[in-house]
Amino acid sequence: MTEQLPQDVIAQLRALDSAITPEQAQSSWALLTPFHEKAGYTAPKIDRDLRYGDDPRHRLDVHTAGGESNAPVLVFVHGGGFVRGDKHNPGTPQYDLVGAWAVRHGYVGVTMTYRLAPEHKWPSGAQDVAGAVAWLRQNVARYGGDPDKIVVAGNSAGATHVASFVAGQGGADPSTVAGAALLSGIYEVRTTRPGEPEHAYYGPDPDPASATLPGLIDSPVPLLFSVAERDPEFFQRAAAGVVSAWLERHGTVPDLVWVEGHNHMSTIGSLTVDEAALGTALARFIDRHTTNGKGE
Amino acid sequence: MTEQLPQDVIAQLRALDSAITPEQAQSSWALLTPFHEKAGYTAPKIDRDLRYGDDPRHRLDVHTAGGESNAPVLVFVHGGGFVRGDKHNPGTPQYDLVGAWAVRHGYVGVTMTYRLAPEHKWPSGAQDVAGAVAWLRQNVARYGGDPDKIVVAGNSAGATHVASFVAGQGGADPSTVAGAALLSGIYEVRTTRPGEPEHAYYGPDPDPASATLPGLIDSPVPLLFSVAERDPEFFQRAAAGVVSAWLERHGTVPDLVWVEGHNHMSTIGSLTVDEAALGTALARFIDRHTTNGKGE
Repeated sequence: MTEQLPQDVIAQLRALDSAITPEQAQSSWALLTPFHEKAGYTAPKIDRDLRYGDDPRHRLDVHTAGGESNAPVLVFVHGGGFVRGDKHNPGTPQYDLVGAWAVRHGYVGVTMTYRLAPEHKWPSGAQDVAGAVAWLRQNVARYGGDPDKIVVAGNSAGATHVASFVAGQGGADPSTVAGAALLSGIYEVRTTRPGEPEHAYYGPDPDPASATLPGLIDSPVPLLFSVAERDPEFFQRAAAGVVSAWLERHGTVPDLVWVEGHNHMSTIGSLTVDEAALGTALARFIDRHTTNGKGE
Repeated sequence: MTEQLPQDVIAQLRALDSAITPEQAQSSWALLTPFHEKAGYTAPKIDRDLRYGDDPRHRLDVHTAGGESNAPVLVFVHGGGFVRGDKHNPGTPQYDLVGAWAVRHGYVGVTMTYRLAPEHKWPSGAQDVAGAVAWLRQNVARYGGDPDKIVVAGNSAGATHVASFVAGQGGADPSTVAGAALLSGIYEVRTTRPGEPEHAYYGPDPDPASATLPGLIDSPVPLLFSVAERDPEFFQRAAAGVVSAWLERHGTVPDLVWVEGHNHMSTIGSLTVDEAALGTALARFIDRHTTNGKGE
């Protein structure tokens, strides 16, 4: 693994528009992919498309070295504005790289898909995270993972789904996981307008119960947050809102990682090739909450 | 250098009372010092007690490997509640360890003292930081440092003095430094009461101009902030206040490092022996702002 990307690459990343657009995604991955190709972004063994539920999107991939035993398990929940995205885009590092990163750190990696809006609305995302966790609790030991050491990480809309799960909106006890990492998520429902990404998922008249912040800050599940240096202001506000709410509830600031140089799309791509940006903190969080069984 | 302390040591640190007391300091350093003794906490060459001004407290130590040329320079400003503290406590790692850490990362390290309250009141701390920087601008090249690559780091009251310098209260242009790291500082003057640490420095009726937050968030000097997981609530509120003010001014959250496991006293002792806590982020910050001359 590489502690950090070359300075000129970070400078190029930082120079990209912070707005979330296909061009931003394409340019970000164009910068990062060569480093992932050099490092390798596939774990030695990938068991693909295991079914954790009845829907065609209820699928997950398990990434291992092959000889794990009672290893911590990192589950990655992709982003995509609630309406798109996949655990695996063939021929690209998205998101096998997360599984490979997990294996490099001694974990079992899991990448999962979930049902999408507008067909499936709140709280389907939280339910699917809960479904995947329940399936892993039953089955991950077969792949060398410890069912008591599952950490769930979500990115963007995936972070919102994980937060929703942690807040208890998935219809399952979230304390079955040892921790949750929320990367550039949103935690309060805005008034949604048609055309805004949340509209498809939360609908035109969001249920106030869909706000995750109150449940998050009261949750016993250990949490890590991150925000990218180049995240759009909306996500910066979400991060600052967590800090403020956390302070009022606990008298402390939460563990919030500022992902240097990266934007909304490139954050997850920092793993392995730019470890100082996020990977070091994420691995330390996982290690801390899985070393001695579950939790602190 | 060591990426992280053993988990049991972090657990012992985390178990200490978060209140700032002599017992907390003693227990924290008792846990950390053996690791510093093993790693070594003195740079190959230390030029001690160089005078940067007329007061007996206007002294600084320069830590080098001996062969530096045009290296970035890290200046460390100690804490001590405005009324105590020193750059060097003989026979302990405080704070030669900061110089040794700097040299390990390829920098010239500087540890400095400054005038103390109650004899010397606001803005004497900012003036002394300015004085040390001015002296280094003139003289650090002789020790292999680049006068255009000076980063100032302050801890606790030292962070407040550095913030005050950055906010322009030291009577000098702060943009002569390439960056400033503010570790567990306070940035707004509270109403002070006799017995509170700030009272001695700010006096019973603080000048509103002594608040550093407005100047900080408008400063062109690149800034890194940190708060310790086990900092008392007062410092947690200061960190959250910076996040909030920064968001309103810039639409982003600042680079704020959450120093895992550490308390107010142990944060600076994480350098070298627990790099993932603070050192990695601090080195990356220094590298970023000194690689291509000054600033971004």
